[in-house]
Amino acid sequence: MATTNNSWVPGADGSGFGLNHLPYGTIDCGDELPRPAVRIGDQTLELHPLVEAGLFDGEDLPPEVFAGPTLNPFLSLGRATWSAVRGRLTELLRHGNSEIEDTGLIEEVLRPLSQVGSELPLSIGNFVDFYSSLNHATNVGHIFRPDAEPLLPNWRHLPVAYNGRASSVVPSGTQVRRPTGQLPPAEPGGIPFFGPTEALDIELELAFITGPGNELGTRIPTTAAREHIFGVTLVNDWSARDIQFWEYQPLGPLLSKSFATSVSPWITPLEALEPFRVNGPTQVPTPHEYLQCDEPWTFDIDLKVSLIPAGRHEETVIAATNFSTHYWNMAQQLAHLTVNGANVIPGDLYASGTISGSEEGSYGSLLELTLAGREPLMLPGGEERRYLEDGDTVILHGGCNSNDGESIQLGEVAGTISPAI
Amino acid sequence: MATTNNSWVPGADGSGFGLNHLPYGTIDCGDELPRPAVRIGDQTLELHPLVEAGLFDGEDLPPEVFAGPTLNPFLSLGRATWSAVRGRLTELLRHGNSEIEDTGLIEEVLRPLSQVGSELPLSIGNFVDFYSSLNHATNVGHIFRPDAEPLLPNWRHLPVAYNGRASSVVPSGTQVRRPTGQLPPAEPGGIPFFGPTEALDIELELAFITGPGNELGTRIPTTAAREHIFGVTLVNDWSARDIQFWEYQPLGPLLSKSFATSVSPWITPLEALEPFRVNGPTQVPTPHEYLQCDEPWTFDIDLKVSLIPAGRHEETVIAATNFSTHYWNMAQQLAHLTVNGANVIPGDLYASGTISGSEEGSYGSLLELTLAGREPLMLPGGEERRYLEDGDTVILHGGCNSNDGESIQLGEVAGTISPAI
Repeated sequence: MATTNNSWVPGADGSGFGLNHLPYGTIDCGDELPRPAVRIGDQTLELHPLVEAGLFDGEDLPPEVFAGPTLNPFLSLGRATWSAVRGRLTELLRHGNSEIEDTGLIEEVLRPLSQVGSELPLSIGNFVDFYSSLNHATNVGHIFRPDAEPLLPNWRHLPVAYNGRASSVVPSGTQVRRPTGQLPPAEPGGIPFFGPTEALDIELELAFITGPGNELGTRIPTTAAREHIFGVTLVNDWSARDIQFWEYQPLGPLLSKSFATSVSPWITPLEALEPFRVNGPTQVPTPHEYLQCDEPWTFDIDLKVSLIPAGRHEETVIAATNFSTHYWNMAQQLAHLTVNGANVIPGDLYASGTISGSEEGSYGSLLELTLAGREPLMLPGGEERRYLEDGDTVILHGGCNSNDGESIQLGEVAGTISPAI
Repeated sequence: MATTNNSWVPGADGSGFGLNHLPYGTIDCGDELPRPAVRIGDQTLELHPLVEAGLFDGEDLPPEVFAGPTLNPFLSLGRATWSAVRGRLTELLRHGNSEIEDTGLIEEVLRPLSQVGSELPLSIGNFVDFYSSLNHATNVGHIFRPDAEPLLPNWRHLPVAYNGRASSVVPSGTQVRRPTGQLPPAEPGGIPFFGPTEALDIELELAFITGPGNELGTRIPTTAAREHIFGVTLVNDWSARDIQFWEYQPLGPLLSKSFATSVSPWITPLEALEPFRVNGPTQVPTPHEYLQCDEPWTFDIDLKVSLIPAGRHEETVIAATNFSTHYWNMAQQLAHLTVNGANVIPGDLYASGTISGSEEGSYGSLLELTLAGREPLMLPGGEERRYLEDGDTVILHGGCNSNDGESIQLGEVAGTISPAI
């Protein structure tokens, strides 16, 4: 019956943040350390007081698991506990349940999202960024290496990735300062310029976050991915293309990415995405056995990039695509990262790489949307953009649309560009 | 007078771990969490009980700063405190001082190194590995890109680097499992092989560790490097060359490095290295202003790589060089990393990249020593090595030799190869 999935929280049903979603985050109430919470509709439900009140006594939780300041202690508990807590939260928030109200804590634990700050809910141990979209890798190859095959020989055999910087991952809403650095010289062999980037870009990505890890020297096979992946968040991997072009050979991008990486503070549990699990693209050639999956590991998630040009207020959608086009999936990425025995730890962030579709208007970066600035985007009101200008705001949206059940909205990722120092 | 630099700890003077050194680490006494300590001779001095006994009351330390399990709380306090604590420790350990003995704690706090375990003393936020040796970069360029200029156009303009994996940094003595992964196909366009690496290598490096960081969006100029650099440790950046060769384009090395990175558990304070500060190589062309230094930032540290082949016991020195040959220095590396506003945090690890001299026998990797395996090393007893074999042990040594004062031995870094799973 449809009513059993309704919540007593006003406005939750149909909001994209209903009972079937319940993303986790940490909230800043202005007084103490960030506090773990779930989002329901436009409200946040703080978790630690509910544990203290005994509402999770059946789940056998460590008493301090939601005491904050991060979700890492909860992430480390593993899938059976995640599922039990989610089940219990669904029960507590379902229409007709009065257990939270009966504690007398409701004023304390249920707060409007508009009255709390959102923090980065993770202590991120490792941040790895993949390069797993066939369309994106092909487009970038054409732009960065115009005289060569766009895909390098390894691309169809393994999910290419690099390590990112963990300390500069910031929550949605954080201002993004335009980075300064060395820019390519005017001619080969010349002295590089020095100054603020003139090619500030975005990358539309989706990251997964790990719970329990593996011991150093062991692997996580694709069949075990569910035990290690807690949930997902949208990511904007801000990139300075001129800095990147000058620095990235031979060891990969560094300063072109390390000035900021924005994530949603709301982590959607993998369990909420289960109804939207779909097959990904056919992989040719068939990858090595350790990269093969015995179930679908892609998800039907609609994604959009919106831009609010400096001084304006309306969002313009500049790109739209779907995550299911992504070539290498999460289980493959995790299997590849650990095939050499590398250890994953709770709170690691593994980003997809830019998600680009195959048609114009479906590309997840300005690099692709404007052909490296050669064909500017035309925006309402006569504005145009090759790359981002100071004061521009970019918002990433994502959601799973359902015809026969509740849709899900992923937590958005917004960031506004502030001038270089 | 020379005697004022003598210690009452037996065997400390002249050991390389005398009063002028006092490296920090954390020790495992088998019962609780790792405990911060300094090394003096072949003894360890646990610090928290001394703070509790009031011996640091003049230094105004947070009472839990040495409570463990890591040195990060101490690192975050900054240079004035580091210097005051070091000064006080020197006083307490100097010949004639009986303050530690007077507490009655000496049996509890002073333990032979042989009776405690050594742990990784840091919670590492970011691990960045540079590529700052001109000789190494030139040698590797010749080997990996034989048909091109060995140095890429950016190399002399900026200290090239990539992000490494923080979670697989391990303390000296940890077994290193031979990694498995994709190896280059037999011919271009072919299917990659899959199996244990056949080109397991070492990289001789020295890393600096940061204390207080900077706010995201600000920089650390070269003139402020002393306020942020706590100390140094030797690093063996184990590398699987065949995995690296196949994976590293276009985004840099990943699985070829992420299976293990070994560090010394004893961190030498920068202050102990001050007498050994020297000018580095002349840089041509003169780098951009943000990379210029107003004092020398290189150190006269002798470095050696020893190999103990499987089944044997004697060390053979296979490479020897000096850190002062390194092209880009620590202050430049830190200034470059933050020129875009990236934030450094306490406990970050910044490795030099392989340290190679200019002559045969001075190269910090087997890749260079054996010309990618083409010219094997001949070892005593008729053994030869192209790359490492299972059971091989590699030990990195480093030290500052003084004619008119005490020499310093850096904490060694040892690791033994265990077979692939």
